[in-house]
Amino acid sequence: MWIEENNQLKRKFQFVDFVEAFAFMTQVAFAAEKQGHHPNWSNVYNQVEIALFTHDANNIVTDKDRKLAVLIDAIYDKLAS
Amino acid sequence: MWIEENNQLKRKFQFVDFVEAFAFMTQVAFAAEKQGHHPNWSNVYNQVEIALFTHDANNIVTDKDRKLAVLIDAIYDKLAS
Amino acid sequence: MWIEENNQLKRKFQFVDFVEAFAFMTQVAFAAEKQGHHPNWSNVYNQVEIALFTHDANNIVTDKDRKLAVLIDAIYDKLAS
Amino acid sequence: MWIEENNQLKRKFQFVDFVEAFAFMTQVAFAAEKQGHHPNWSNVYNQVEIALFTHDANNIVTDKDRKLAVLIDAIYDKLAS
Repeated sequence: MWIEENNQLKRKFQFVDFVEAFAFMTQVAFAAEKQGHHPNWSNVYNQVEIALFTHDANNIVTDKDRKLAVLIDAIYDKLAS
Repeated sequence: MWIEENNQLKRKFQFVDFVEAFAFMTQVAFAAEKQGHHPNWSNVYNQVEIALFTHDANNIVTDKDRKLAVLIDAIYDKLAS
Repeated sequence: MWIEENNQLKRKFQFVDFVEAFAFMTQVAFAAEKQGHHPNWSNVYNQVEIALFTHDANNIVTDKDRKLAVLIDAIYDKLAS
Repeated sequence: MWIEENNQLKRKFQFVDFVEAFAFMTQVAFAAEKQGHHPNWSNVYNQVEIALFTHDANNIVTDKDRKLAVLIDAIYDKLAS
């Protein structure tokens, strides 16, 4: 689940392997681009960490972040089901 | 399911939308590159058609195609579950 | 260059290898999704064929297609430079 | 250029926008998967930071990392040319 701390909305995701993790990232990339709101994220092998906050709002968590988080969860839930 | 006709192994796949179709294609692209064996494929919106045959074997269906088909099915089954 | 025939705007693109072709497709996919207008396209190894027409306008070439063609050219020109 | 510090080989890459950054990441993902050696990397908007080290060799920089770095540079040089 997402944790809000230090003005960031954060969640870690785990996948079977690198290819599945990157397929997840590809779908998230499309969602982010469509929203015009992009994540801070990192990946190593099958793990993806995402931190959401809004640069244009002095780096706090805004509704843009909460909306993107919901979209990311929907992508993950479908992939991981 | 895959149909074998005219020396090609063919299957049509359908997804919710373009982004999901392209995420499928991304995973298939990784599998193909890893096998060193690439599909003939087309996409329009949420539909992907794949035709497999082996150029180096006079354009007939070989074990390389059957192996890639199995990998593609596994990707699809997981995405569409 | 793009050729307009049979109410389709068509162009063939060639790349060094499959990975470069698929990287091109990924960028085109983002452009298409952003425009809400998607190509009919096919790929085999290092070749990509794109056909543009507008389903909602009785399958003729419209300004939506011409706009997407310009975006695709910009992606290709940068990749192939 | 790559900097080696704290047993990591690191480089920052900058692109025109998010889509170009993600297209770069897609090509790097293919190279990494082909090598069976994956980066630690992060992205925010048009910036990508990559850190390479070898988990199986007690987290130091090995030839696997140097080889992947060369492949990543070739991808970047072509995209950014």
